[in-house]
Order: sequence, then C-alpha cells, then structure tokens
Amino acid sequence: MTDHLTTLYSGFAARLARTPDMGVDAMRDLFEGWHLGTTEPARVQYAEAEGAPVPATWCRAVGGSGLLGGSGRVVVHAHGGGFVVGSRHSHRKLAGHLAARTDASALVVDYRRAPEHPFPAAIEDLVSTVGWLIDAAHRPADIVLSGDSAGGNLALSVALRLAERGTPPAGVVALSPWFDLANTAESLAENADLDAMVDRPTLQLMAQLYLAGESPEAAAVNPLHADLAPLPPLYLTASRHETLRDDTTRLAERARAAGVSVTVELEDGQQHVYQMGAGRLAVADESLTRIGRWISALPRVAEPAVRPTVAGAVR
Amino acid sequence: MTDHLTTLYSGFAARLARTPDMGVDAMRDLFEGWHLGTTEPARVQYAEAEGAPVPATWCRAVGGSGLLGGSGRVVVHAHGGGFVVGSRHSHRKLAGHLAARTDASALVVDYRRAPEHPFPAAIEDLVSTVGWLIDAAHRPADIVLSGDSAGGNLALSVALRLAERGTPPAGVVALSPWFDLANTAESLAENADLDAMVDRPTLQLMAQLYLAGESPEAAAVNPLHADLAPLPPLYLTASRHETLRDDTTRLAERARAAGVSVTVELEDGQQHVYQMGAGRLAVADESLTRIGRWISALPRVAEPAVRPTVAGAVR
Repeated sequence: MTDHLTTLYSGFAARLARTPDMGVDAMRDLFEGWHLGTTEPARVQYAEAEGAPVPATWCRAVGGSGLLGGSGRVVVHAHGGGFVVGSRHSHRKLAGHLAARTDASALVVDYRRAPEHPFPAAIEDLVSTVGWLIDAAHRPADIVLSGDSAGGNLALSVALRLAERGTPPAGVVALSPWFDLANTAESLAENADLDAMVDRPTLQLMAQLYLAGESPEAAAVNPLHADLAPLPPLYLTASRHETLRDDTTRLAERARAAGVSVTVELEDGQQHVYQMGAGRLAVADESLTRIGRWISALPRVAEPAVRPTVAGAVR
Repeated sequence: MTDHLTTLYSGFAARLARTPDMGVDAMRDLFEGWHLGTTEPARVQYAEAEGAPVPATWCRAVGGSGLLGGSGRVVVHAHGGGFVVGSRHSHRKLAGHLAARTDASALVVDYRRAPEHPFPAAIEDLVSTVGWLIDAAHRPADIVLSGDSAGGNLALSVALRLAERGTPPAGVVALSPWFDLANTAESLAENADLDAMVDRPTLQLMAQLYLAGESPEAAAVNPLHADLAPLPPLYLTASRHETLRDDTTRLAERARAAGVSVTVELEDGQQHVYQMGAGRLAVADESLTRIGRWISALPRVAEPAVRPTVAGAVR
C-alpha cells in the first residue's frame, strides 16, 4: 500500500500526529487537500447549484444530459470527513469522475458540519437538497444518493428518511462508509497497522462532535441499528484492509436479511475511500466505472415527470 | 469594501494574526482556500497537463479550440501567494474564468515554491513549461504569460528571460502584481487600513523566503530595476486602494518610458487580485472580460507553425 493515496493519507496522519492541538479550522484546511489524491477528470464541467438550499456544485459530463431540469438522473453526493471536515471542493473531482462514468449529473453538497452543527443538521441539509430537486421536477426515482466515509452514513440515513416519506431514491452508493458510530468493528483493531489515515481515536472524536449527546447506537445516526427494509438497492465498497471494513460487511448482511438488493465490492490492500485515487489508481477507476454502470442500470419507474405548479418551485 | 472577497481575505488575516507561529504547511493549507472567492466557471473543462515538466492544469472553454497541439493561444498562468503559498488548485477557477473569456487555453503551473525552492526555481519552472509548449509546436507568439500578485512578478520576469533568448511571448498580463521585493511603495502605508490581506510584514517575510540572500533590488527578481524595453505588450491591473498599487503604476511608467505598449486598469475600492471574485463581483467579471478581449486582440505574427522534429518533442 505505497500508492499515491497511501502517501497522501500518511501525510495527513503525520500532520495530525505532530500537531495534536490543531483545532477544527486547521484540520479542515488540511483535509481540503484530500482532492490531491484525484486527477482532474477530463470532459467534465462544473457549475454552482443556483437556487439550491445549501451550497452545492454540479458536476456534469461534457456533452451529457442537461443539468437541473434535464431528463438525466442526479447523484447527490455527501462528502466524507467525519461530519467535521471535507467539502464540495475536496470531493469535486471524485464526483466528476463518477459523473463522467454514468448518465447522471452529480451534485456535491456542502451540508453543515459538526461541531457547530451536530446531528441532524447534515441530514436535514441533504433532505432539503433532495426536496429542492423534486420541486425542480426531478422524480425521486431519478435521484441516487451517494457518499463516502461519514458521507456514506449520511446517504443511507437520508435514503431511510426519504423512504419513510414514501419517496425513496433509486439507489444508494456508499464508499468505505462509516455506519457504526459506536465504533465496535473488529476491523478497527485488525487493520490498524494497514490503514494510513482512519483510526479509532479519530473516529471517536468525530463521533463525539457529531452526536453532541445523541446515542451512537440510535437508528437515526447508526444504520446498523435501523430497520433497513425500506431501502432501495445498495452498492457498498470497502477495502478488505481498512479499519472501517466491517461497517460495510455488517450493513450488507443486515440489509440482505431485510430483503434489500445489495452489491458489495471488497478490494484487497487499498486505503479508505480508494476511489479518491481516480485517475492515478487503476482500482479506483475500475470501481467508479462499475458504480457508474450500476447507477445507469437502476430500474426507472414508469412514472411521468410532473412539473410542480406550487409557488417557490425552482425552474 | 465589504464584498465576498473582503470577507474571505479578512478571515485569512484573522487566522494569521491569531496563529503567529502557524508555519509554512498550515499557511499553505489556509491559502488553498483562496479559490473560495471564485465561483465555478460554467462551460470550462480541466485536464492534467500530461507530459509537462512541472505539474500543471489545463483550463479550456467547452467547445473551444483544442488543448495541447491545438491552434489556439495558451495563457500560462503563474499563481499568486508570495512565492510561498497558492497553487494550480487555488487559482484553477480564476484561470477557468479567463479561459472562458478568450480564445486561449489557460495552463496553471505548480512552480516550485519558497522557502524549499527559493529564486530562481519558480522562474526556471515557468521557463521550462514554456519551452515544453514550444517543443509541442506552439509558437512563442501564441503564448501569453499571466500572473497575479507574486505570480505577476514571475510572469514579467519570465517574459524578460524569453525575450533575451529571442522568443518573447505575445503579451504579459499581471493582476495586482508584486514587483518591488524591496517593498518601497508608498501605497504600502497609504492603503494599509483598506487592504484586508496584504501588509508590509507579510511581504517582507515572503521576500526573505524567496530571495534567500539575493538582493531585493536585483533586476532578475525586481522588474522595477530591469531593462523593460524587450517586453511585449503589457496589461496591468490593480486596485487604487490596495497596498501593492504603486508596483503597477511605477512599472507602467517605466515600461512606457522604455517604449513598451502598456494598458493599465485601476479600480476603486477593490481588494488585492480582485479578479479572484469572479462570478460574484461584477468588477472582477468585467476585468476578466477586458483581459480576455485584450489577449484575443494581440497581434499574431505571420510566422508559420513548425512542428519540431527533435527527439523528445511532445505531440
């Protein structure tokens, strides 16, 4: 595991280790550099999401279907960073690589982060973003939720909320998701020496900042404890050698037991969210290609798109 | 001056003020956020500059002329950041906004930075990047050098080097350039209370790191002391109310006296490199539109493009 991503993550870990009193602002600055793992995807264009309830960035393949209001699918991406760091900027290129591999536009959302905005702020921001898309005439079945690391938790949690309302998304993609905020995975110890970035102390700190007193085993923050039956098809990925591996395998097992369609991709010897190596790491590109195909193949409900006539609808 | 850019710059200044022992790594992390002043330009695509001697990012208008090897002009951009901070990432969107407004592709270059790599490393990297473009069949007259802040100094210094070799670029654009590394401008004191980010102590620190013992008045680092006669047409911009204003006005005066064609744009009440407000600040968009037109109107030498046959040429 001495690839480009391992080097980047080891650098983050070293900076954190030698600056234990770094503080949230400096930690956010540091992890903005997460994008350095990823090359600029060719033939992708970006745009500010005008009118969105939360700052967000559109990522669209050049020559692809339209942005807002177009007929294509939208992948709403919740970036990783332990609910505390990361942004639509650190994950723009990742979302761009995905957008280039599917018929969907990707929308990377700057949801509010802990500790200033603990649970459920991030979930509310993602739910309102999906609501904005639906107001703009996207059908729920045209929306896919995706997320990496803590963003995988958010994507799944938001999908459960939407399903409860009767408007489930078409599918959920989670890359190296962090579901278990109680941090009980055996892989946390088993892969501690192999994972260059994610360790139990950091996860515990992040969970504390996000939960702000909420139980780490509450179903709303920990999908391992939720009723998963209402979920649409899931695509989960993890490295067999990362600390968060068991969050993927445990969630997959429970979702299947609940009758959910689950696709799991486990890779040997990769780092956390290895898709961030897109453009430099073949396994990242191959994974994103598979995910793009999976999204494109999700069944489309034969429900007609109806433009809302209510005031405030976005056009 | 309470626009978006002023708020961003005041935030940088506050972070520096309350963390005086920040160190170079953390300062670089902080200023990577310079891009937050700028919106994502629509209809621009990016690509890694494959084969370039220094990491660099292509910025090209969607539907515009080809990237490397195309017939269009190339604007080689040297980012600002006092020779110490800033990158092709912090300035990608700025270059994208410029590329969208001209018939040229922009290339933002990650030249080596001080203090690890003091003068003349950055200049050498930019010269070798231009040499790579020429090897790839771009004519010198198809190349425009641009830069902001310290990058304006680099753009002009590189243009002088290229002119000495008999291959001057078509023009030079410098946005709020920092030419005078001896920091003798009267505007440093006059505008100290109005400029939200750039102050004399910071400039003195940056100059010290870059110069590494070189005289701040040497012609190779301080274009105010150089023979400017060999320069191609210049486009210089500054705010009347920024600390570095006099670097623009003094250079313009000396270049005109040397017979160089100089266009100067001075704006009231703006911050340093106000073009970084592109997409949010009308004065930034208007300035970039004027610069794009100026670049497109630069005379094209009637010299035929000759593809080199030497080994190592990039195709």
